[in-house]
Amino acid sequence: MPYLTNKNSIIELIKSHPGSVRRLWIEHGYETVSDEVIKEAKRQGVSFKVLQKNIFFKKFTNIKSHICLEVDEISYTDPDELLHDLERIKNPLLCAFDGIFDPQNLGNILRSAACFGVNAIIIPKDRSCGITQTVASISRGGIEHVKIVRVVNLARYIDTLKETGVFCYVLDENGIAPIWKADLRGPVCLVFGSEEGLRRLTKEKCDEIIKIPTEDVFPSLNVATCFAVSVSEAKRQRAVSQTI
Amino acid sequence: MPYLTNKNSIIELIKSHPGSVRRLWIEHGYETVSDEVIKEAKRQGVSFKVLQKNIFFKKFTNIKSHICLEVDEISYTDPDELLHDLERIKNPLLCAFDGIFDPQNLGNILRSAACFGVNAIIIPKDRSCGITQTVASISRGGIEHVKIVRVVNLARYIDTLKETGVFCYVLDENGIAPIWKADLRGPVCLVFGSEEGLRRLTKEKCDEIIKIPTEDVFPSLNVATCFAVSVSEAKRQRAVSQTI
Repeated sequence: MPYLTNKNSIIELIKSHPGSVRRLWIEHGYETVSDEVIKEAKRQGVSFKVLQKNIFFKKFTNIKSHICLEVDEISYTDPDELLHDLERIKNPLLCAFDGIFDPQNLGNILRSAACFGVNAIIIPKDRSCGITQTVASISRGGIEHVKIVRVVNLARYIDTLKETGVFCYVLDENGIAPIWKADLRGPVCLVFGSEEGLRRLTKEKCDEIIKIPTEDVFPSLNVATCFAVSVSEAKRQRAVSQTI
Repeated sequence: MPYLTNKNSIIELIKSHPGSVRRLWIEHGYETVSDEVIKEAKRQGVSFKVLQKNIFFKKFTNIKSHICLEVDEISYTDPDELLHDLERIKNPLLCAFDGIFDPQNLGNILRSAACFGVNAIIIPKDRSCGITQTVASISRGGIEHVKIVRVVNLARYIDTLKETGVFCYVLDENGIAPIWKADLRGPVCLVFGSEEGLRRLTKEKCDEIIKIPTEDVFPSLNVATCFAVSVSEAKRQRAVSQTI
């Protein structure tokens, strides 16, 4: 069962999704410093238990924290269910990754996706790290706010998205047009390479290649950063067009 | 002496700053897999040495890599020197942090700063982690491309920047105006809170409070992400105004 160990992540998750929380565990002696967490747990009706140090560390091996929140298993959204949902969403903003191998990156991506209200994150089943404790913790509970879709064949899923009217942009540092010249206001899927780059087929399936302009001498943005910058630009365009 | 252990970081640094590199060390048996690195070292005249496994790990304790690049100590830019430099830069883009405690965040910030060509990163001396191996490695060698200025008193330095004509915006999730409504084209310093938030004095010293709009139910962007999104928006505004 996954668990969170970061105090802020725990508080945020208890506040936003008390229903997906199982139980809060606290190491004996750390009740006072965990006061804020305990208060929030009480407020939301989340049960908590204090354990003696040796029992705590026997139960939660390899953690460095003195508090631990057990949460439900992450439930992925079915790829077909997402397609069905798209009919009801006006101008969905989707993001797909050709692969994500670093839990730190996936956690950061899910945190930013929750912040920017991305409708779904699409990852390939065989080319992505799982939603581990590390991912959940780095996302600060963001995993509870974002639909995560795992697909067997990303290229084929991009085809299906295109058929339903979603325009697929691929972000590539060798692209010509800067992202702000692309129209990101309609139903859009932004496609990103993995930490190892983009596969040819994924790139070819997309409608248009765009880029985030960077310095020639140091062009390599981190994939989670590239994602956040792109999504933020889409949100800007959408907000600006609403106010005109 | 700091060192890099990530292959990509090593290649990038040898390419871009061969002068700041001391020597490349390779564990015996890993010469073939390090072929790309060795070629770049030879091309740039960087000396390298192969060590037997036991000697390699005696020399570089606690590393998980089989290659290691020794680099010069990071040299910070003097605060007064930056002020002096500003006279010669047209529309400098500076970024200051009220504190940065997580090496992962600082590394990410320096990598993005190098990508977007930020003129300097300003951090408080007593409220920031150092430029450790972790920071250098996560920055992918970005530390060599960005001026890093450590100041004793950030609030006072913001005052000085304002006196030299730099407009100081502070990013705060409680701000009203979205960042894209602010004019980021002139001499600008973007000021960010630490992972623990913004200190009152830092906030008060700035000319204007702006925000990156996020979802109400999940507003908390990571500081390195907030930084990248803000700087990217500044670069967009500057590029767009040049083409009009």
